[in-house]
Amino acid sequence: MRITVLAGGVGAARFLRGLKAEAPDADITVIGNTGDDISLFGLHVSPDLDTVMYTLGGGISEEQGWGRDGDSFTVLGELNAYSAGSGWSGPDWFNLGDKDFATHIVRTSMLAAGQPLSAATAALCQRWRPGVTLIPMTDDWAETHVVLAGDPGQPGPGPGTVHFQEWWVRLHAAVPAADIIVEGAAQARPAPGVLEAIAAADVVLFPPSNPVVSIGAILAVPAIADAVRAKTVVGVSPIIGGAPVRGMADACLAAIGVPATAQAVAAHYGPGLLNGWLVDEQDKAAVDAPELAGITVRALPLYMTSLAATATIARAALDLAQDLRG
Amino acid sequence: MRITVLAGGVGAARFLRGLKAEAPDADITVIGNTGDDISLFGLHVSPDLDTVMYTLGGGISEEQGWGRDGDSFTVLGELNAYSAGSGWSGPDWFNLGDKDFATHIVRTSMLAAGQPLSAATAALCQRWRPGVTLIPMTDDWAETHVVLAGDPGQPGPGPGTVHFQEWWVRLHAAVPAADIIVEGAAQARPAPGVLEAIAAADVVLFPPSNPVVSIGAILAVPAIADAVRAKTVVGVSPIIGGAPVRGMADACLAAIGVPATAQAVAAHYGPGLLNGWLVDEQDKAAVDAPELAGITVRALPLYMTSLAATATIARAALDLAQDLRG
Repeated sequence: MRITVLAGGVGAARFLRGLKAEAPDADITVIGNTGDDISLFGLHVSPDLDTVMYTLGGGISEEQGWGRDGDSFTVLGELNAYSAGSGWSGPDWFNLGDKDFATHIVRTSMLAAGQPLSAATAALCQRWRPGVTLIPMTDDWAETHVVLAGDPGQPGPGPGTVHFQEWWVRLHAAVPAADIIVEGAAQARPAPGVLEAIAAADVVLFPPSNPVVSIGAILAVPAIADAVRAKTVVGVSPIIGGAPVRGMADACLAAIGVPATAQAVAAHYGPGLLNGWLVDEQDKAAVDAPELAGITVRALPLYMTSLAATATIARAALDLAQDLRG
Repeated sequence: MRITVLAGGVGAARFLRGLKAEAPDADITVIGNTGDDISLFGLHVSPDLDTVMYTLGGGISEEQGWGRDGDSFTVLGELNAYSAGSGWSGPDWFNLGDKDFATHIVRTSMLAAGQPLSAATAALCQRWRPGVTLIPMTDDWAETHVVLAGDPGQPGPGPGTVHFQEWWVRLHAAVPAADIIVEGAAQARPAPGVLEAIAAADVVLFPPSNPVVSIGAILAVPAIADAVRAKTVVGVSPIIGGAPVRGMADACLAAIGVPATAQAVAAHYGPGLLNGWLVDEQDKAAVDAPELAGITVRALPLYMTSLAATATIARAALDLAQDLRG
């Protein structure tokens, strides 16, 4: 069986663990979101690609869900000392451990040598052997930006546009966003292998990733959205009982005017894209919601509380795909 | 008093400590060798600039003489793991600690942002406050290369040219060199402030640095050599009793056909450049050597065994300069 998964970070990585356990012989390609990528200290950081790679490769910090296991912070401490005391200043709001720095150094050195991000990702994965083929959505520049709503009457940041990571990590998504835009996506070409993996897939899965800045950023590349539209697509809701399971997806949804409900997220993707949708039992009203006509909705427990629970969710997604394909 | 010093790494840094102790009110400018600079893991490493900066700023590893105090090696360990197990491979012969990596990350990020090396050096020095003005010899590309003699009849590296660091660090200078060339130096322009510091100096000092790859590399920039020639120049011999005090300067001298003696080094610089020369008591025969006519030679203990001993050497250099200027 061939499965192609559009993936964000932590939620996708955990779902993929369950999927691998449930379908050990499947040929799984993961198309990773790079809209969150950011240059920090002159190094190219790919948070979502690394979270998938580390999680499936056994190098993740299980406590954090991102970053390396048992990491130390000597380099960052020194960079902060330079920021405080020198004629240089770097961002003080992004946490990078020493082991993690090595990954970014390797990636950046390959990019500086003229290699595309997909080649750097493949090289890094040769060490981590994640058991899936991990491909960035694009080798081109495409960056998720947040248009801040601001409030001229209040202190704090006013209107303006910031990199997604700055809004998410530095501002904790606490400053209301007026819009979220994936700059460059309209011109971006899918990385080598992306369209082939989608075309060859028996099913395309959306794990419970952020529908705006993870799955949404990948689908912002027009050729990817077109390719996905031609396939059987089953998604797992990242919203349970009106709240994101993890992270601040509700703030992202608010920015684009979509309510934070399992139903509204599916309606946002639309029946032209999504064929099947798994919601939590709390949200079973979505099963017969008229606005989701054209999407087959099933309700089951969606909390990924253990590998077994996650594998059950993955199995439900594969079963739904099979039923949809008839 | 204004003193300008042409500096390599460890020997120069230790001499400068003595000079600062002896002449605490002097305005000291250090022109640092950048011929040894190398791109490692995509990062710009300036070994000599950093050794001077760390030593005078209190961040040096006293045991090694280079690198940061109390450093750890997590990043390098990870890079080696990538080299061994991934589709990427980096140099495995250069030791960089985590704290040191931060310096190279800051420098590289400034260069990538379009700043010259001299600006990056000034920014880094704002943190370290070395008590001297440290300027790289040039902002342009100038790189010391070693032409290997090789031996077609033997196994091992044959003829070829390698970066100085590869010969020095990876090959331990054990492969005979046929020549040492500072590529790019003839076209390199002195960094901003270099010529001004030489012109304004009461004396130009050559610390006991490598005469070929440290002082020699700096003098390979034509405009610097011309400016130095116009000044009172006093050097401290890096060769005592026919052997380098530290490092493998003898192998470098052999490559350019200069005997490893205090006398031969002074003759190599020549009376058109060097006005005064300090040799160790073991080498006092140099004082009256006919080949050093035009250079005033004085003999005194030259081992930098303590800060006090080093300060005495620095004092002797300043005294000799004063006598030469009359």
